[in-house]
Amino acid sequence: MEYFNYIDSDLYCEDVCLATLAKKFGTPLYVYSRSAFESFLGHLNEPFSKHKHLLCYSVKSASNISLLNIVAGLGLGADVVSGGELYRALRASIDPQKIVYSGVGKKASEMAEALDASILMFNVESKEELELLSRVARDKGLVAPVALRVNPDVDPKTHPYVATGLKESKFGIPIEEAPELYQLMGRLSHLKPVGLDCHIGSQLVSTSPFMAAVERLKKLLSTLRTLGIELQYLDLGGGLGIRYNEEIPPTPAQYAQAILEALGEEGDLTIILEPGRSAIGNAAVLLVEVLYNKTTPSNHFVVIDGAMNDLIRPSLYGSYHQIVPLYDFSRPTHKVSLVGPICESGDFLAKDRLLPQTLPGEFLAVKSAGAYGFSMSSNYNSRGRAAEVLVERDSYKLIRERETYSDLIRGEYSN
Amino acid sequence: MEYFNYIDSDLYCEDVCLATLAKKFGTPLYVYSRSAFESFLGHLNEPFSKHKHLLCYSVKSASNISLLNIVAGLGLGADVVSGGELYRALRASIDPQKIVYSGVGKKASEMAEALDASILMFNVESKEELELLSRVARDKGLVAPVALRVNPDVDPKTHPYVATGLKESKFGIPIEEAPELYQLMGRLSHLKPVGLDCHIGSQLVSTSPFMAAVERLKKLLSTLRTLGIELQYLDLGGGLGIRYNEEIPPTPAQYAQAILEALGEEGDLTIILEPGRSAIGNAAVLLVEVLYNKTTPSNHFVVIDGAMNDLIRPSLYGSYHQIVPLYDFSRPTHKVSLVGPICESGDFLAKDRLLPQTLPGEFLAVKSAGAYGFSMSSNYNSRGRAAEVLVERDSYKLIRERETYSDLIRGEYSN
Repeated sequence: MEYFNYIDSDLYCEDVCLATLAKKFGTPLYVYSRSAFESFLGHLNEPFSKHKHLLCYSVKSASNISLLNIVAGLGLGADVVSGGELYRALRASIDPQKIVYSGVGKKASEMAEALDASILMFNVESKEELELLSRVARDKGLVAPVALRVNPDVDPKTHPYVATGLKESKFGIPIEEAPELYQLMGRLSHLKPVGLDCHIGSQLVSTSPFMAAVERLKKLLSTLRTLGIELQYLDLGGGLGIRYNEEIPPTPAQYAQAILEALGEEGDLTIILEPGRSAIGNAAVLLVEVLYNKTTPSNHFVVIDGAMNDLIRPSLYGSYHQIVPLYDFSRPTHKVSLVGPICESGDFLAKDRLLPQTLPGEFLAVKSAGAYGFSMSSNYNSRGRAAEVLVERDSYKLIRERETYSDLIRGEYSN
Repeated sequence: MEYFNYIDSDLYCEDVCLATLAKKFGTPLYVYSRSAFESFLGHLNEPFSKHKHLLCYSVKSASNISLLNIVAGLGLGADVVSGGELYRALRASIDPQKIVYSGVGKKASEMAEALDASILMFNVESKEELELLSRVARDKGLVAPVALRVNPDVDPKTHPYVATGLKESKFGIPIEEAPELYQLMGRLSHLKPVGLDCHIGSQLVSTSPFMAAVERLKKLLSTLRTLGIELQYLDLGGGLGIRYNEEIPPTPAQYAQAILEALGEEGDLTIILEPGRSAIGNAAVLLVEVLYNKTTPSNHFVVIDGAMNDLIRPSLYGSYHQIVPLYDFSRPTHKVSLVGPICESGDFLAKDRLLPQTLPGEFLAVKSAGAYGFSMSSNYNSRGRAAEVLVERDSYKLIRERETYSDLIRGEYSN
């Protein structure tokens, strides 16, 4: 089901007209569909119903408290990668026993916060981190539940910046070193091995890299058993892609089936998945206003009020986002570049795109903007960050206020 | 003169030991040298002393109010590119009659704010913007002083994202269309042509593109005179590069001399320059702490607590920043990659860099971090933004507080 549809030439999110929101809250504006988000998480949960499993929403993809409240309400968990994300998840009342903490650079203070909160497990990425976690847990008289994140050296065939499971990556422990580290954990009294983790990358559009990773993890699990190490959790990370343009990613059912099939006899472990982009990516749009149509001898530019500070993906990764008008007037199309007000040539949202003619004051929707949209936004060029709105059927609410000029200088001292 | 020096194996900013600041304020931490900043601006001002001129500091490069206070104290002006930057400049008591407003995407509300403040001039980038500005000024019963930003189609030989004067760029007006627009201004009663502007790019390490641009502007000025249009201001933008690695950019004196020489008989105009990176780039470092040394079969990673959310330039532009330890212990060097805690492979500050061995808890300085450092930083991965400290001789002050967890969710609604 599609949650962003034209009704009588107006683009709607569920049953709310997007132009109404753009006028009411101003632009640039992130608009999330609650039903799209919930529906994906439901579709991913369903095929695992006969297996012990836990979905831990990847907070980094879109971390607004109201989105995390939805996750909590569905009884799901969270994948956090910083003390700040842990704070958000706890504030949103996500059950700490459903929180996993990932990331290569955990600080001792962040480990302490997570131990105090009694999270489900730490996905540990190096021997050095294991030793630090042991010291932090010992100082607190606590035992830290640990999964080692191993690096299966599987090529996810995605953007190099989001491929995370190759052997040259900073992430994880080389899979062949894992048995030794699990044995080390046995000797460190404040650590308890409870799981095995991997995450091979983001925006994957085929199931085969996931299956290849599972095959390697199964071999490791078998080796660990011969060493007397029995684990409870198998965290396969996130990474399922979405359709931005022409991609045809696996459906949740296909993805689940591939994983369950690859797991085979390991079905006794609790499977953890960390959906982020797949759940929220296509559940939101970024609304922008057309400021100017500027024609130069070599280009037609549509200057909009959304910029790289609002959505950096096109500039940083060369990402494609579909862009559509909020009023479908069937005007003639022409080839344009959509650029923002920021003073660098890297500030564009689309290049050489066929788009119907639009006039200043009209609105456009940048689609698939839910994941790594607002969460990567900045105040570059002293632009306040966008407001965020959550739609559910015919109702909507502001879930984050637009930043004001005075927000920009908070924490600064003028004299 | 160098403002960051080792004294007895400790790296200092002016007369302040950087390790002291790292311990007192925590890391990641931006540290600015007031003397370095002031000294550059003085060196750039000096060679123009016999000419009418105005330096307008480019607020977008580093926009902390305390830095803008220094600019105001020196009697200099500001180049702003948004309502937020105008707000900052005014808050810092920069004389509005020394403020120029640039950028391709000014909104009507921002134009109104700048008119109310009586700024020196609007650098207008399209015919459409000219028409909007005229309407906004008319509604207020005011006259807007205007410079047209022309695009001289000069190749600055810099990163494509910061080359802004090529004909395929979104910036400026094709130089051959300028005379017609100046004549149009004569017919729009609420606009007053006062200047001519160009900005060809950023991080230029040769004077020749500047000279080529001036040559083209001179021809245009001469054409305009034959049409009876006399201007007061010639804004040559910014763009002077700095040394990040092996670059040898022109000195302020060489840059000034090249411009004055190219200007020749046009010396009667008030020259406006918009230094940003050149003034603040090498006046600051980003201090980070080593969290882990992580050796994998293919790499040695130094995991630090600074990340792409703190300094995105390496990830976004592939930029080089020199990185040095705060303690110069003459330890053996080895080849390392410096990576941050953020969960993507694009999160690195340096790759394959020869660096002395460092231990967890020790500090490093990322040099040349003053420009487009803090100003581009974000909360990605729910990381609070760094604190900023300003050093002057043997004293220092916190000029922006570190963001806390509660800052991260400000403006969000939890229910």
